[in-house]
Amino acid sequence: MQATMMDVPLSLNHFLDRAGTLFKHNRIVSRLPDKSLRTMSYGQWHRRTRALGSALQRLGLRPGDRVATLGWNHHAHLEAYFGIPAAGGVMHTLNLRLSPDELGWIAADAQDRFLIVDDVLLPLYRQFAHLHAFEQVIVFPFSGAPVPAEFADYEALLAEADPDGFVYAEHGENDPVAMCYTSGTTGRPKGVVYSHRSTVLHTLAASLADHWGLRSSDVVLPVTPMFHANSWGMPYGAVMLGVPLVFPGPHLHPEDLLDLMQLEPPTLALGVPTIWLGLIQAYERALETTPGRWRLPQGMRSLVGGAAVPESLIRAFARHGVIIVQGWGMTETSPLATVSYPRAELRDAGEDERFRRAAMAGIAAPLIELRLVTDEGRVAPWDGQTMGEIQVRGPFITGSYHGVPRSEDKFIGDDRGQLWLRTGDVATLDDLGFLRITDRTKDLIKSGGEWISSVDLENALMAHPAVAEAAVIAIADEKWGERPLACVAFKPGQNAAPDALNAHLLQHGFAKWQLPDRYQTIDAVPRTSTGKFSKLKLRQMFPR
Amino acid sequence: MQATMMDVPLSLNHFLDRAGTLFKHNRIVSRLPDKSLRTMSYGQWHRRTRALGSALQRLGLRPGDRVATLGWNHHAHLEAYFGIPAAGGVMHTLNLRLSPDELGWIAADAQDRFLIVDDVLLPLYRQFAHLHAFEQVIVFPFSGAPVPAEFADYEALLAEADPDGFVYAEHGENDPVAMCYTSGTTGRPKGVVYSHRSTVLHTLAASLADHWGLRSSDVVLPVTPMFHANSWGMPYGAVMLGVPLVFPGPHLHPEDLLDLMQLEPPTLALGVPTIWLGLIQAYERALETTPGRWRLPQGMRSLVGGAAVPESLIRAFARHGVIIVQGWGMTETSPLATVSYPRAELRDAGEDERFRRAAMAGIAAPLIELRLVTDEGRVAPWDGQTMGEIQVRGPFITGSYHGVPRSEDKFIGDDRGQLWLRTGDVATLDDLGFLRITDRTKDLIKSGGEWISSVDLENALMAHPAVAEAAVIAIADEKWGERPLACVAFKPGQNAAPDALNAHLLQHGFAKWQLPDRYQTIDAVPRTSTGKFSKLKLRQMFPR
Repeated sequence: MQATMMDVPLSLNHFLDRAGTLFKHNRIVSRLPDKSLRTMSYGQWHRRTRALGSALQRLGLRPGDRVATLGWNHHAHLEAYFGIPAAGGVMHTLNLRLSPDELGWIAADAQDRFLIVDDVLLPLYRQFAHLHAFEQVIVFPFSGAPVPAEFADYEALLAEADPDGFVYAEHGENDPVAMCYTSGTTGRPKGVVYSHRSTVLHTLAASLADHWGLRSSDVVLPVTPMFHANSWGMPYGAVMLGVPLVFPGPHLHPEDLLDLMQLEPPTLALGVPTIWLGLIQAYERALETTPGRWRLPQGMRSLVGGAAVPESLIRAFARHGVIIVQGWGMTETSPLATVSYPRAELRDAGEDERFRRAAMAGIAAPLIELRLVTDEGRVAPWDGQTMGEIQVRGPFITGSYHGVPRSEDKFIGDDRGQLWLRTGDVATLDDLGFLRITDRTKDLIKSGGEWISSVDLENALMAHPAVAEAAVIAIADEKWGERPLACVAFKPGQNAAPDALNAHLLQHGFAKWQLPDRYQTIDAVPRTSTGKFSKLKLRQMFPR
Repeated sequence: MQATMMDVPLSLNHFLDRAGTLFKHNRIVSRLPDKSLRTMSYGQWHRRTRALGSALQRLGLRPGDRVATLGWNHHAHLEAYFGIPAAGGVMHTLNLRLSPDELGWIAADAQDRFLIVDDVLLPLYRQFAHLHAFEQVIVFPFSGAPVPAEFADYEALLAEADPDGFVYAEHGENDPVAMCYTSGTTGRPKGVVYSHRSTVLHTLAASLADHWGLRSSDVVLPVTPMFHANSWGMPYGAVMLGVPLVFPGPHLHPEDLLDLMQLEPPTLALGVPTIWLGLIQAYERALETTPGRWRLPQGMRSLVGGAAVPESLIRAFARHGVIIVQGWGMTETSPLATVSYPRAELRDAGEDERFRRAAMAGIAAPLIELRLVTDEGRVAPWDGQTMGEIQVRGPFITGSYHGVPRSEDKFIGDDRGQLWLRTGDVATLDDLGFLRITDRTKDLIKSGGEWISSVDLENALMAHPAVAEAAVIAIADEKWGERPLACVAFKPGQNAAPDALNAHLLQHGFAKWQLPDRYQTIDAVPRTSTGKFSKLKLRQMFPR
């Protein structure tokens, strides 16, 4: 017998039309380079997005063609998110924090035909223009200045286009909509290509009540760059449910974000831990120096991911009425694969236990299967102790990389013929299914045959009142193989001796053999292109 | 270019294994025929469900074979929901409120091979056993009595089965998992067959924060029968997220439900309006006669659907701290197609406006497209005025009926070649996309070329303090064609004259020509097999 259900392909175009009809009165706010705010309605955005689709088709876009974007978080980037796929193209977000060489290599690897670039980023574009010849460069006049004559003007293209006459490109649900390159800490960056299907499924799973919990009453502030794993997919969720958006534009300093939160208070914000670390420090300083300058939106949820979140950071925000929601994922996982949420089973657990859980990576989202595989290739038990590499599979997990043969070090089959992605992250899983990231495979410190988690040491150090930031890397040791080196940045005017920090770690339950052998004072932990702590740069600063 | 995402089919088996691993400590409570409670964990349920799958395979179940169920809401029915598809079968829920003739006809039409039946329903089974020969009848000893020797014993089958060695039947995502027959007010009942894909997509969309808002902290009481549109899909959502369940068994009287709510307080309950109408009346009576006997769970959400919900009912529950959430759908739509939720755009609207919106059918869920088509075949504007038949499409909407050629009166194509389901419900859509059901096509009263909505009259009449229930049907009229007849059941010891009721309707904004020509006092509105008001039976009582 056969099911009688309609054969309707999953499609981003459906989200676009929903927003334009059901939610047309809701607002999209963008902060411009001069810090003023530009506001439009979802209804206007819907017309502009269809106009973009129409303009791209008129420029000769063919199904599957890549259109690169090089831009900050703003309404026009959101137009690209939907307008490019609506026309049949694939949006390829270029990471503006990469070097010109990397950008040129990536644009060439993706064979990008067109580029949509913020005018304020033209200087960066000019540095890699010689490495890849885009057929058409479309400049979004983000600053309001006239577009240089040698480029196409984004606003002029939209003004000439016909949103009413626009016809969506036909597509199947497995057709591509977007691509994003991994940061590629080893080897060349690799492209992940998302489909209508994977994006719609990810959006539904990520929006669930215990995950993002996206509601009509929300106002979302995406600090996570739109060039970083699709801003974790939030733009798709906001459009699906017509949720008002506040885009920070290029202004990502803690003071700028706090200012913006006063003007347009969000109920939901998202960003990497380092953003929130800087923000809470600026906020707490201001409480002492200029009380009344800012007020954190009460009850705001902050989605934090992309790196482990220290428990001390979660507690600090909780003191100020903000709920940190931690998730785990990567470009390859669309990205949301796990979320930590308050499980009913822990209702009677104490506050300490609840914060301990909140500092974990959380529970696998629906549609995601997750397992840990030990060094010896065995599937680890869910005992909260046994460490193993996280492997994942599911309909919004990548099964290969663009233009690269599938290799055993990234993908592995099981005895049922199912494919798993090897994430390179090492973790434990406990009885309730809580995933706790202990390290990146390559960041674990192997001391005398035992593993020491650099992440655990860092989180404990950042709970010390004098410490602003901490990162731990391995240094070579004749006797033990590797030993931990702790790089510590202190808060302004504060300090702590290695002995005091070690005493603090012993109090936090570390064994003596796990304590760092050396402490190194630094100004700040260097950052990756996506704003995470860069252990690669630290290792270059402090070679083994 | 091709997307790089994994090809992983959507599957109910994934939900089943999630519940058994991530949520194994959570509880499933069932009320037994003797009103005692049986509690098991999701971990135990997972083993029993796999044991059922294994037992069915051993009995010779082949992929696509139908296994009928005839049962109340309890854990074993939930085992059938997942165990039958896990073994490759199709669960076919038989509606125990139908006549034996109808049941026999439906079982034969579906070619059910096996039947799983509650022991307390064997008398009903015996009345239609001669109409369809099931190969195997498996009796669930719900009452605890020994199973008659001529039948297979459900518990014995499970005890002999091997849950650990069970291997899921291979399937594609479009393979069938369940079937349900429409109530069929005209002509024979027709079968709708759901797939893994449609069920998973419906579960994700229905669980969203503004819809069911299913959370780990919820406790769900499904009063909606599991044989009625899959209990609106809630069993799938609860299993996906491991949410504790409280099943009422056969005890659906208001007093029984209120008793159960004291023992196992739910945060989320679901049922048709007549259930909640009876419940609030019993509750308010008890407040006067036996105060302190019951307390409604504060903050509980009640999902109500299957028929229009009077605003007076929503207000009555709100007075007692319970939030009524209205949705609209039908067996053909999986069923949730729209939900009414508080839109941010209405934040500053007054309480009256919010209650008015809460009494509407609500907003189309993601993945659902919705349009109204007028009598003249034109797509109606979203003006809150123009009435048209609701037509829907989407990946969890049926595109045909089992074994019946697709007919123009149920399915219609548009000029883009897209298929739409004709629902037979008539509604308006307003600027914000709120759907307001005005009637079933066949229940509209056509008076002098104008339509009068029977639903609007009923809801206004039920807001009168003396009225317990009201239903309006058309009677023939020489001059006008049709005129309204109002059938009214008064609250105990209360009454109101036709003139008083008409004055009440005029106050509620009805025009004089819309007022009922006749009032008929009845004891109660007769019910359909799914507990809704039966206008068919009323028409038989009061022929035109």
